[in-house]
Amino acid sequence: MAPESVDGDCIGWAARDASGYLSPYTFSRRALQDGDVSLRITHCGVCYADVIWTRNLLNNSNYPLVPGHEISGVVTEIGADVTHFKIGDIVGVGTYVNSCRTCEYCNVHKENICVNGETYTFNAVDTDGTITKGGYSSYIVVHQRYCFKIPDGYPPEMAAPLLCAGITVYTPMKRHKMNQPGKSLGVIGLGGLGHMAVKYGKAFGLKVIVFSTSIYKKEEALEILGADEFVLSSDQQQMQAFSNSLDFIIDTSSGPHPFEPYMSLLKTEGILVLVGFPGEIRLSPASLILGSKTICGSITGGTEDIKEMLEYSAANKVYPNIEVIPITYINDALERLVQRDVKYRFVIDIQNSLR
Amino acid sequence: MAPESVDGDCIGWAARDASGYLSPYTFSRRALQDGDVSLRITHCGVCYADVIWTRNLLNNSNYPLVPGHEISGVVTEIGADVTHFKIGDIVGVGTYVNSCRTCEYCNVHKENICVNGETYTFNAVDTDGTITKGGYSSYIVVHQRYCFKIPDGYPPEMAAPLLCAGITVYTPMKRHKMNQPGKSLGVIGLGGLGHMAVKYGKAFGLKVIVFSTSIYKKEEALEILGADEFVLSSDQQQMQAFSNSLDFIIDTSSGPHPFEPYMSLLKTEGILVLVGFPGEIRLSPASLILGSKTICGSITGGTEDIKEMLEYSAANKVYPNIEVIPITYINDALERLVQRDVKYRFVIDIQNSLR
Repeated sequence: MAPESVDGDCIGWAARDASGYLSPYTFSRRALQDGDVSLRITHCGVCYADVIWTRNLLNNSNYPLVPGHEISGVVTEIGADVTHFKIGDIVGVGTYVNSCRTCEYCNVHKENICVNGETYTFNAVDTDGTITKGGYSSYIVVHQRYCFKIPDGYPPEMAAPLLCAGITVYTPMKRHKMNQPGKSLGVIGLGGLGHMAVKYGKAFGLKVIVFSTSIYKKEEALEILGADEFVLSSDQQQMQAFSNSLDFIIDTSSGPHPFEPYMSLLKTEGILVLVGFPGEIRLSPASLILGSKTICGSITGGTEDIKEMLEYSAANKVYPNIEVIPITYINDALERLVQRDVKYRFVIDIQNSLR
Repeated sequence: MAPESVDGDCIGWAARDASGYLSPYTFSRRALQDGDVSLRITHCGVCYADVIWTRNLLNNSNYPLVPGHEISGVVTEIGADVTHFKIGDIVGVGTYVNSCRTCEYCNVHKENICVNGETYTFNAVDTDGTITKGGYSSYIVVHQRYCFKIPDGYPPEMAAPLLCAGITVYTPMKRHKMNQPGKSLGVIGLGGLGHMAVKYGKAFGLKVIVFSTSIYKKEEALEILGADEFVLSSDQQQMQAFSNSLDFIIDTSSGPHPFEPYMSLLKTEGILVLVGFPGEIRLSPASLILGSKTICGSITGGTEDIKEMLEYSAANKVYPNIEVIPITYINDALERLVQRDVKYRFVIDIQNSLR
């Protein structure tokens, strides 16, 4: 059985087995290197990835497993070579803490698609051979390249979800030029990612149409998140009313759904971006060929995009909707996340609840 | 039963029913309008579309049906407003002969994706309510916008297949920036479209890898078409040797095949373009998301692209490999096309065989 605790000064909460049940756990972080920043974690967002790996859904979990990759905190120590940060800065860390720094993608700051594989913030093998441990913990040591200044005045508890949910939708929206005012954007699914897609869509000046399987999300979508239209995706008539009308679709859903109906909503040369993990994609070639349409995937974003997204979010007052919880509530929160019972992101108040 | 012939001065070959059997047929063309060009057809390429509609495979064929949309010929008459052409010019006509000319796509010369639907060269309803008739005929009348100068010295029998097979692969190659020397291109299928993709790929300076189900195409692919590598797609070891190595794939196949194996050959941010009609696409979302990969469709090309493609083909000596046939051989040729027994495009010698 895995040890309940090891020596160390970092306090965290870890899952010990595939039950995914989290409980307190102390461990060591690596000593500060010349390029490193150490930060006292104040907040950590709760992403569905935390469910996936604490419960070993992909059969590759390393226990004890400390999840969390939407981190905000305060710089407490900097290495000799650190130039971008000073002690006291409010900063964030996202889904990865290292990459090869030499490949064609790292060279253009697309570390999220590093050819040699970026090092994920938790459950990955770090350069020293240890397993990375995430933000459900009191502090973290990270190379300055993978640490980001949170703009002055942006609440750190709201910055945390930007580091995964925010960047995951912001990057493909920018890459595929979804920031053209007047264009139309469909958003499939209204969870942590979907609600951020609605917010960026509106900030970019798009007409935003939310597609959901739950009619109970209609009022929220329109009145709280500011979407322009709501479509109950099981209602064929409502769906058909949007035939050939959308420039873009972002699919943030995690449940299986048919793709043909959505492709038919896209205009000629329209683009559907997958950022969630719905079930299998099944399409007739005609649904892509006849309107020169595109379906593509995207995963998080590079370091330059993260900086830009943080600045953009602050300048345009784009804030996630969050429910702040103490770490002691985390097991309930993860279960509620599985039940999709959250509007729209849990954020753990690490600084006031982790002891 | 459809009439064997109607009055008119245009001699053609038509299918009369879903047997697809073609035989002589005379009919009328519209009177020349001010913006029109009339051309005496010298050659017409034989596209798989000709099989599809002569045999009513899509249940929308209008008989008698005169196929053919890879047309080259000589201008014999021009309307009062025609400025781009003069009598005697060698010109081509492709897959469409009209479009709305006012939509956002027509306005940027992407008439191939006209919002209101371009008018196909055969089996479509023309502006005067008649059904368009294609290039298996002695002459055609077309608005100058949909007629293209064949560059001096480019053999007209070779220009014909450029108007469909050529542009169908050239347009997505250009749109997706597949003209960067040193990048790698996979070509699935080695028929009329595939062999042109190999030729443009080499002209663009790409490393070209042909994927085929037939080992008998290996020597042709490498020694006659100039591909760099040949992969027997049923051989898993050969396939795996190209894992994560291709920047682009053009899928020209018309038979069903799995998509996951090809997506795994693409590098991060790689793009697969569909231009043929293989069977259903089935993919796991992970195969798109994890490497930020794209799959998209494309159909023929706009008028500016066609002009550019013709000039590019002449300047770079890109020629299709053709088998010139008399019109009297067309029923055998279509059957051989169905059997994939052609290297790589039949072209009907209209001027010397149609009487």
